[in-house]
Amino acid sequence: MNKTEKMLKQIVVQRRHFWEAVEVRALRLFHDNSKKKEEAKFRLEKDTFGELKVPANRLYGAQTMRSKLNFPIGGYAETMPMPLVQAMGILKKACAEVNKNFGLDPQISDVVSCACDDVISGKFYKQGHFPLVIWQTGSGTQTNMNANEVISNAAISMMGGELGSKTPVHPNDHVNKSQSSNDTFPTAIHICVAMELNERLIPAVTHLRDALKAKSNEFKDIIKIGRTHLMDAVPLTLGQEFSGYAQQLTYGLDRIGTCLPRVYELAIGGTAVGTGLNTHKGFAEQVAKRIGELTSMPFVSAPNKFEALAARDAMVEVHGVLNTLAVSLMKIANDIRFLGSGPRCGLGELSLPENEPGSSIMPGKVNPTQCESMTMLCAQVMGNQVAVTIGGANGHFQLNVFKPLIVSNVLRSIRLLGDGCMSFSKNCVEGVRANKDAIDKIMNESLMLVTALNPHIGYDKAAQIAKTAHANKTTLKEEALKTGITEEQFKEWVDPKKMLGPK
Amino acid sequence: MNKTEKMLKQIVVQRRHFWEAVEVRALRLFHDNSKKKEEAKFRLEKDTFGELKVPANRLYGAQTMRSKLNFPIGGYAETMPMPLVQAMGILKKACAEVNKNFGLDPQISDVVSCACDDVISGKFYKQGHFPLVIWQTGSGTQTNMNANEVISNAAISMMGGELGSKTPVHPNDHVNKSQSSNDTFPTAIHICVAMELNERLIPAVTHLRDALKAKSNEFKDIIKIGRTHLMDAVPLTLGQEFSGYAQQLTYGLDRIGTCLPRVYELAIGGTAVGTGLNTHKGFAEQVAKRIGELTSMPFVSAPNKFEALAARDAMVEVHGVLNTLAVSLMKIANDIRFLGSGPRCGLGELSLPENEPGSSIMPGKVNPTQCESMTMLCAQVMGNQVAVTIGGANGHFQLNVFKPLIVSNVLRSIRLLGDGCMSFSKNCVEGVRANKDAIDKIMNESLMLVTALNPHIGYDKAAQIAKTAHANKTTLKEEALKTGITEEQFKEWVDPKKMLGPK
Amino acid sequence: MNKTEKMLKQIVVQRRHFWEAVEVRALRLFHDNSKKKEEAKFRLEKDTFGELKVPANRLYGAQTMRSKLNFPIGGYAETMPMPLVQAMGILKKACAEVNKNFGLDPQISDVVSCACDDVISGKFYKQGHFPLVIWQTGSGTQTNMNANEVISNAAISMMGGELGSKTPVHPNDHVNKSQSSNDTFPTAIHICVAMELNERLIPAVTHLRDALKAKSNEFKDIIKIGRTHLMDAVPLTLGQEFSGYAQQLTYGLDRIGTCLPRVYELAIGGTAVGTGLNTHKGFAEQVAKRIGELTSMPFVSAPNKFEALAARDAMVEVHGVLNTLAVSLMKIANDIRFLGSGPRCGLGELSLPENEPGSSIMPGKVNPTQCESMTMLCAQVMGNQVAVTIGGANGHFQLNVFKPLIVSNVLRSIRLLGDGCMSFSKNCVEGVRANKDAIDKIMNESLMLVTALNPHIGYDKAAQIAKTAHANKTTLKEEALKTGITEEQFKEWVDPKKMLGPK
Amino acid sequence: MNKTEKMLKQIVVQRRHFWEAVEVRALRLFHDNSKKKEEAKFRLEKDTFGELKVPANRLYGAQTMRSKLNFPIGGYAETMPMPLVQAMGILKKACAEVNKNFGLDPQISDVVSCACDDVISGKFYKQGHFPLVIWQTGSGTQTNMNANEVISNAAISMMGGELGSKTPVHPNDHVNKSQSSNDTFPTAIHICVAMELNERLIPAVTHLRDALKAKSNEFKDIIKIGRTHLMDAVPLTLGQEFSGYAQQLTYGLDRIGTCLPRVYELAIGGTAVGTGLNTHKGFAEQVAKRIGELTSMPFVSAPNKFEALAARDAMVEVHGVLNTLAVSLMKIANDIRFLGSGPRCGLGELSLPENEPGSSIMPGKVNPTQCESMTMLCAQVMGNQVAVTIGGANGHFQLNVFKPLIVSNVLRSIRLLGDGCMSFSKNCVEGVRANKDAIDKIMNESLMLVTALNPHIGYDKAAQIAKTAHANKTTLKEEALKTGITEEQFKEWVDPKKMLGPK
Repeated sequence: MNKTEKMLKQIVVQRRHFWEAVEVRALRLFHDNSKKKEEAKFRLEKDTFGELKVPANRLYGAQTMRSKLNFPIGGYAETMPMPLVQAMGILKKACAEVNKNFGLDPQISDVVSCACDDVISGKFYKQGHFPLVIWQTGSGTQTNMNANEVISNAAISMMGGELGSKTPVHPNDHVNKSQSSNDTFPTAIHICVAMELNERLIPAVTHLRDALKAKSNEFKDIIKIGRTHLMDAVPLTLGQEFSGYAQQLTYGLDRIGTCLPRVYELAIGGTAVGTGLNTHKGFAEQVAKRIGELTSMPFVSAPNKFEALAARDAMVEVHGVLNTLAVSLMKIANDIRFLGSGPRCGLGELSLPENEPGSSIMPGKVNPTQCESMTMLCAQVMGNQVAVTIGGANGHFQLNVFKPLIVSNVLRSIRLLGDGCMSFSKNCVEGVRANKDAIDKIMNESLMLVTALNPHIGYDKAAQIAKTAHANKTTLKEEALKTGITEEQFKEWVDPKKMLGPK
Repeated sequence: MNKTEKMLKQIVVQRRHFWEAVEVRALRLFHDNSKKKEEAKFRLEKDTFGELKVPANRLYGAQTMRSKLNFPIGGYAETMPMPLVQAMGILKKACAEVNKNFGLDPQISDVVSCACDDVISGKFYKQGHFPLVIWQTGSGTQTNMNANEVISNAAISMMGGELGSKTPVHPNDHVNKSQSSNDTFPTAIHICVAMELNERLIPAVTHLRDALKAKSNEFKDIIKIGRTHLMDAVPLTLGQEFSGYAQQLTYGLDRIGTCLPRVYELAIGGTAVGTGLNTHKGFAEQVAKRIGELTSMPFVSAPNKFEALAARDAMVEVHGVLNTLAVSLMKIANDIRFLGSGPRCGLGELSLPENEPGSSIMPGKVNPTQCESMTMLCAQVMGNQVAVTIGGANGHFQLNVFKPLIVSNVLRSIRLLGDGCMSFSKNCVEGVRANKDAIDKIMNESLMLVTALNPHIGYDKAAQIAKTAHANKTTLKEEALKTGITEEQFKEWVDPKKMLGPK
Repeated sequence: MNKTEKMLKQIVVQRRHFWEAVEVRALRLFHDNSKKKEEAKFRLEKDTFGELKVPANRLYGAQTMRSKLNFPIGGYAETMPMPLVQAMGILKKACAEVNKNFGLDPQISDVVSCACDDVISGKFYKQGHFPLVIWQTGSGTQTNMNANEVISNAAISMMGGELGSKTPVHPNDHVNKSQSSNDTFPTAIHICVAMELNERLIPAVTHLRDALKAKSNEFKDIIKIGRTHLMDAVPLTLGQEFSGYAQQLTYGLDRIGTCLPRVYELAIGGTAVGTGLNTHKGFAEQVAKRIGELTSMPFVSAPNKFEALAARDAMVEVHGVLNTLAVSLMKIANDIRFLGSGPRCGLGELSLPENEPGSSIMPGKVNPTQCESMTMLCAQVMGNQVAVTIGGANGHFQLNVFKPLIVSNVLRSIRLLGDGCMSFSKNCVEGVRANKDAIDKIMNESLMLVTALNPHIGYDKAAQIAKTAHANKTTLKEEALKTGITEEQFKEWVDPKKMLGPK
Repeated sequence: MNKTEKMLKQIVVQRRHFWEAVEVRALRLFHDNSKKKEEAKFRLEKDTFGELKVPANRLYGAQTMRSKLNFPIGGYAETMPMPLVQAMGILKKACAEVNKNFGLDPQISDVVSCACDDVISGKFYKQGHFPLVIWQTGSGTQTNMNANEVISNAAISMMGGELGSKTPVHPNDHVNKSQSSNDTFPTAIHICVAMELNERLIPAVTHLRDALKAKSNEFKDIIKIGRTHLMDAVPLTLGQEFSGYAQQLTYGLDRIGTCLPRVYELAIGGTAVGTGLNTHKGFAEQVAKRIGELTSMPFVSAPNKFEALAARDAMVEVHGVLNTLAVSLMKIANDIRFLGSGPRCGLGELSLPENEPGSSIMPGKVNPTQCESMTMLCAQVMGNQVAVTIGGANGHFQLNVFKPLIVSNVLRSIRLLGDGCMSFSKNCVEGVRANKDAIDKIMNESLMLVTALNPHIGYDKAAQIAKTAHANKTTLKEEALKTGITEEQFKEWVDPKKMLGPK
């Protein structure tokens, strides 16, 4: 074993440590803009379990730190998604404001509300104040406490207090007033999913749908062979083919619409088990209203808080819709890459945009990479569907404790589908060209134009003509004429242009 | 090896043959009421591939027979489901009647329409005229032809013609007139799924929902401990707990409602690839209307037939709703069996109906078997979801060819959920009794009643009390008094009856 | 509304009743060869819950009858699969014989052993003595009791006793001696799955693998274009392509082999919770040995009975292997149908056997129906995987209660894959022909033969040639010569025959 | 609308832009340690599509840059996992060294081999030279080219050449010599999965298994009630219960072992379509051998390269094993949290370590958070199983193009299960304590000890005793004595200590 080899072996063995190292480093880089020397500083924070050192330049407290230490699972790639944290900010703001009506000191209300803005904007997330991973407690309690701690410390800071002192703003008694993780976390889930559906997914699907529609229009006069069972069938226009894709996505948009009413129902006000213990009458409705104002979405208070805490069925429903969308998109992407297969040994009806070299060994090769990216992410969504289903089905009693799993999968699926639709549209669909000559040539070779003879000579005789032409490698016309059909009749009857709709 | 052993070994080795035998036999028994001697008789039927012997007492023809021979997969348990075949009868009847407006001989129209009645009633299915399995061509062509052949032969028979003669009623030219498997099979799918949803699933889910609601009312005054993370939490009433279950199913019914509009859209009129070749204008709409009359459901013609043939997204959507329902039901059934666990070493809050002896070795044991049946069938539905998803995603070009897979899974899921809800309701939920004494005793031991102290003494102090009581195995009250709370205050503040809603 | 219409409407409304009716009838037909008049007769059977009427001509007793009444879910299509019942017969026989060593009256042992033969042969199943559905108790207790009751009554009958008297052979005390449903049902699962894997699946996969291997050999000299990303790539032989398919199945067989050791481990001897209460030392090992003799398979006693009762991981593992097999088969069937697409507008490299007319509207159409059947059933297996996974994960404490779900899915997947492989092999693969002319023509048009120039002129220049030819719609050779390559060099370097392996 | 509100509204609306921004920023922070001013600098890189600006401080070239621009999907959280990139470094090193035997300039070989070390160590990944996401081309071509570009530029740099000049080390002609993305990417998959299984998963599962075994031993004398169907059953020891968990994981380790032989088979040498075009005889075997030396694992050359490129079945198989492991772990974690439920209103047999405050509203609450984390990640693995299955099944012809999807899911599942096992072991299992008093009290209340009477008085009489005691809320003994059993007999027969094994 030579020297390099030894070094390598050592490196390989230490790979795991490197892997950990890169994450710690990334976490640091990602979460930290402050100077190195400050990083070494810590302050003491305290919870009901005792004291704990937390980084001096972080706003979170002891409970967040405890979770960081207790769940070293998967590294920074597994961090709780930002939209969920932002939604938590919206919720905490609304609660602080509404609590003013129920006894909260107006000054504390104002400063908490103000502190929430930096959660809502994503600033605190970006600065590393929300470091927890998905794989924590199944109620998201630690992320709720993370929000409470960060907001209370930010508020304390604004008021000139000492971080970690819980004075004059207490994370539980003030920021979490009239709340429980059990109602805040599902509320935040519904807020961020509603926002992501409305702001990310619907625009992206609409964009792709419109691109497909535009192509449908562009291709409306190109007659091509139809294919059923992958086998030659009767003709249609390329525009008609694309109209089907557009229709799939129109339905997809309809489907998103059908599940939104239940997403707009918020659990807040249920507190620990759904009864609303420690809240006041009206609190739930006022908070839902305020969230609606802040987000311009029609949020309402859920009619039954026991369901709203114990089940996450609305998320399973949403993911069922995402799953259906993935099914549609996989079909569309598959069709487009098959129609674009070739350039010389495939179907060759479409030319897809050439975005990059396709092979490290085969020079000049170009591949349908956008279709591949799309079909892969659809498969991921189909897998996420099962994760969400299992998480939804296994809640017990008053609380589902698969919530971080569920929300992270729903948000990831929305993100992948949304970004995927935009990329697929811009880098593929919008640049698809029809190879008219090839399409025309292929179509005219098909034996299935024989179908147009059915009403004139019957199915059995028509079949005989097609089968003979297939066996003899001749054309339909040649064989048709032999059976007594005249040239005029054939021309009149077997005209692809007349085969594109009902009579 | 002794004699018996040899015999057994031989029997075991021959098991596979027995297995085949029992199926052939079952098939015979199931499909045949006629006398043995008649069975030996065959007649010749013919299709474009040539002649074939079919049983004389069967109405199907050569194409059906060919499929029977070509797909010996899975035996009679894998037969195409009856509701699909019945829907095919409804569709063929509607087409025959509407075709009268488009040139079909009125007498043929009438007799075909009449022959369809025995498909619709299930009579022909029961008599063994529809023997094909699910695992055939992915378009269901052979089942469409099975229907065409049976109906044409039944019509021929009524008119005194010879079976298999295709005269005066031809399976393709008359029964299948203006149709293709490619539009009839998806139309039949939508018809039977709409019917099963409306006639089987909705009533069953409603029945169970109402039973849960009734229990919720019955239990409205029973205060019990809440459980989150499986751990003791604050109290709620047993009625509130059951109201959450009822709400889950109310949403389930809403969800079924949201997908129905797309189920009511029918592909008929698209023929081979969606263009409507060989149909007349108005045919699609008239057939949809006629099917609506026959079924009393608001069927319409699908606005885009290319989507209606190439995709089965509406079925993926429907199954997403069924999957969500399975998630709800698994949660409910799990809760009920956990709450009923015991009788002496579990939670013991509920007594479930005792329906049967529970153990072959432990005398007197009674088990939550209805919950087990329910959770098992929910798991099956969750699996079916994946099968339907994969089938939906993998259609190509103008035709999805996973249709028998898709419809059989959707129908099986509906059937299992529907029957499951009825059985679970009648044999379990309706007979559930609350063990009030046990519930009361457990609730009063909980340390989590401490939560009611938060507004009075703050979270941190309240936590201290609970933790001390836990450590000392004392009661909350004992520890609370030590902290200076008075007996009156404790009684006033920590009252489960006051913890059941907002102030 | 005319008269027919009214009748129809009524029929449609009554559909559900018909559906029930056909099943009751089928059940009757299926389970009954006796004369009608005998059917009306009942006898009284008794269990610890009291008396119950059972059909006089059935061998089962009160507990089976109770289950029939309590679980009206899904109809006869959902009956517990026969191989499981037969395995129960093998187990009961082995126990009866071994119990002779542990105090069971030798005469009772002999007669019970003898009665088991009719369970093993499938006779009692075929005669309707095992009517229970999958959706019963999750431990299979009722099917275990069904076996105990049938065997005890059969034994009583042989000894001239009265059916239902439990004398001289008691279903629990004798037939179930030293057993519990909790160890018998998982034991039966392992027995029948081991048998189905060995007797059905392995032979079928081997058959298909050998057919693909034979084709690989037959096609070994046919050079064709390779396709990556569906796009033209460098050539290979059709034989090489098929060798990949054969290799996938060879691995599939290896994978079945890897899971068998854990399938051969039997739970029997664990009785109620794994401790072996009410058995004797040696019982577990002797029964496993006896089962091994009866089946000629290397069954052993599971080393840890707590795992063997509480988990069903071995079945999840087996289904993981089946799932992998389904993945392989879907790939193979997809490839074959794409390569056979056409006949004139697709790839057209293969001709698949023409087994049946392919369209009810397009005369002469032939479709790759065997591939469709195969890909559909693979999708079902992938769905079953999720059902089995959920069932396996949700056992609690000493007993998994998703067992009928799990075993029915494993058996169905084995059956579908086994039958599917045989049908796909016989009706498709074995008859596949290569369209040599088309293959040759397509291959020679490919621009990707340019890859062979890499070692001579480098990747970048080679890419330039291919891209120019693509843009100019010329041949590689034309463009290559322009760059200074000589005709001899081109012929020497770009020779598909030399591109089939390393130098 | 007040001022704050307006600001908030604006912020909320801009959320998406923030989200993008945070990622761009994170990407920058993550991938960049250099000074800001250098960031503005770019150099020109070139591929067969033309020139492109890439960051001056990055080693990647035009193809990587193109992919970054073409696939803006999901942000940095969706980056190709590091172990895959490191494996690519190992492969490239081995190829460079072996290519020395097949004509590669020894100096170039050495410098390429040396440059690979910084890929292997993770340094280049950490420095941001591998920025591509999973959702790119399905062959991983762009990641292969990313590696080729980075390594060639690093090598050029070492030799004093100009970055991007491709001289004297060309990314395709030298670094990728005798390779194709089609064989390198699957080879890298097998390398990193083999390493992660061996170095991360096996140690973690072993650690947890050993912890469970230790607990099994610690608890070997604690007799407790068994539970089947969640209902009271006969007793076992807590040690026996935990022995079942340990056994599940022992099998899990066995299962990992069974799939490794196929993971050790490498595709390298197949090049573009499996033929090995542009390689030399012996290349495949020598590279596999060299990789084996570098990693100390028994890698071999795959016997059939067509399978090795076209299928990814070995990964589906591996994930089937991971799925089975997830099933085992979910069962174990569920049991432990149910046994630890309470502290006063649940089963309360175990005390789990108290790691953090459990509720933001209920003071003093402690929850089984490690169990929740584990069950959530198991659900994720079960979802990933479906994604991998769909990806594996949908490859076409000579190349599976779902590879980044597949490998990212396999790696994520390994990571989650590995980290999850360590955390669950350290933060939960190792600290579990048995509540002996509670266990003893519960056990003695059980009526199912009656089972021990079966051999003495028969099942039916024993059942009568148990049912009467249940109805009367009395003890077994009381009712037993009434039936004539003596006190001595009862004491002798119904002794939990004697119920823990066969006689």
